[in-house]
Amino acid sequence: MPETPQIVTFGWVPEFARGFVRDIRPRWACEEVGQPYEAVLIRDAKTPEHRRLQPFGQVPAWRDGEVEMFESGAIVLHICEKAGKLIPADPAARSRAIQWLVAALNSVEPFVMALAVNDLFEADRPWSATRHDKVVEDLNGRLADLENALGDKQWFDGDEFTVGDLMMVSVLGGLRGTGTLDRFPRLAAYVARGEGRPAHRKAMADHLATFDTPVAA
Amino acid sequence: MPETPQIVTFGWVPEFARGFVRDIRPRWACEEVGQPYEAVLIRDAKTPEHRRLQPFGQVPAWRDGEVEMFESGAIVLHICEKAGKLIPADPAARSRAIQWLVAALNSVEPFVMALAVNDLFEADRPWSATRHDKVVEDLNGRLADLENALGDKQWFDGDEFTVGDLMMVSVLGGLRGTGTLDRFPRLAAYVARGEGRPAHRKAMADHLATFDTPVAA
Repeated sequence: MPETPQIVTFGWVPEFARGFVRDIRPRWACEEVGQPYEAVLIRDAKTPEHRRLQPFGQVPAWRDGEVEMFESGAIVLHICEKAGKLIPADPAARSRAIQWLVAALNSVEPFVMALAVNDLFEADRPWSATRHDKVVEDLNGRLADLENALGDKQWFDGDEFTVGDLMMVSVLGGLRGTGTLDRFPRLAAYVARGEGRPAHRKAMADHLATFDTPVAA
Repeated sequence: MPETPQIVTFGWVPEFARGFVRDIRPRWACEEVGQPYEAVLIRDAKTPEHRRLQPFGQVPAWRDGEVEMFESGAIVLHICEKAGKLIPADPAARSRAIQWLVAALNSVEPFVMALAVNDLFEADRPWSATRHDKVVEDLNGRLADLENALGDKQWFDGDEFTVGDLMMVSVLGGLRGTGTLDRFPRLAAYVARGEGRPAHRKAMADHLATFDTPVAA
């Protein structure tokens, strides 16, 4: 196992995917907690070799002196737990931080992805245009509930930015360019706050810089 | 806060939803770790009062002497962490157990839900019939990868049943009655192993017995 932790991710993705690949999540977590890492760039995630790390043939995967693992949500938890940062020490606050991380992944991201799948990946399918309004309606319903839950708070559990906010900001960032958050000003401001953090800016810059770098394999 | 932990869930659901409501997950976790709990039955999850516990107006929610929280995945982690069970002590095995829990919630459940939404909740929509094959194709692709990752192992990380298996079995259990797992005999056997555990049987029996009980509110 490597001495410096590694994030395995794509060395190239099409223009429309840049800024959206989930390696941004562990990169951001590493920057927040001050964990150095190395990006290992691959071209093809469907190889048997990569699937031993990531069974669904996706990115990112993670390797450190302790563990090899996949799933951006779990990797981010692992990074933060190891560093003892972004997860509050108080047991109740800790459980709530993890609750918001899980909410982002299980209760919000499926609605965000449904829009991308319908409008982008299935744009040429016969149902795409007819189904669009229903997908948007479901997504907006979820976002309205989420905005109510945020209320006037800075972060979902109050004044402290946690691993739950990191994941929620990243999931909502998946709506960038769709105009969806225009109807949800408090959520839009929340995402801007998260993406404005120096650690996020660095992670995003490093992610984007990848596509100027030659690919190893 | 209550002395005995409470699972807040529906006292009544339509016939087709029985055996599928996510309160089964914390019930199962409680049975596995030996944590007594009380089920608090509600009729309507969209009330302002319930939304203070569960912002999306869904079930389950959880209350104990320490925390009020929602998201079945996070509640199950909370129960297991508190009990020091189903999450291995070894840091690498611990991270992998959480990885499988997150994989179930973020990489498998959206595909399982897509089938239920298309074929059940959107059955009367003009796209439902045309879109069905694509939904099944995407789901089958994901399940094929998952079956490869399971291989001949008993549980996803080997011989030890973890919180990751609890969640994966529960998510795959959402396919009950669709015939989907007929093409994936190793996954079908895995789900049968999980659902055959005494703790799961008890949780499912208690869940189903709910619908013979008068509803409080």
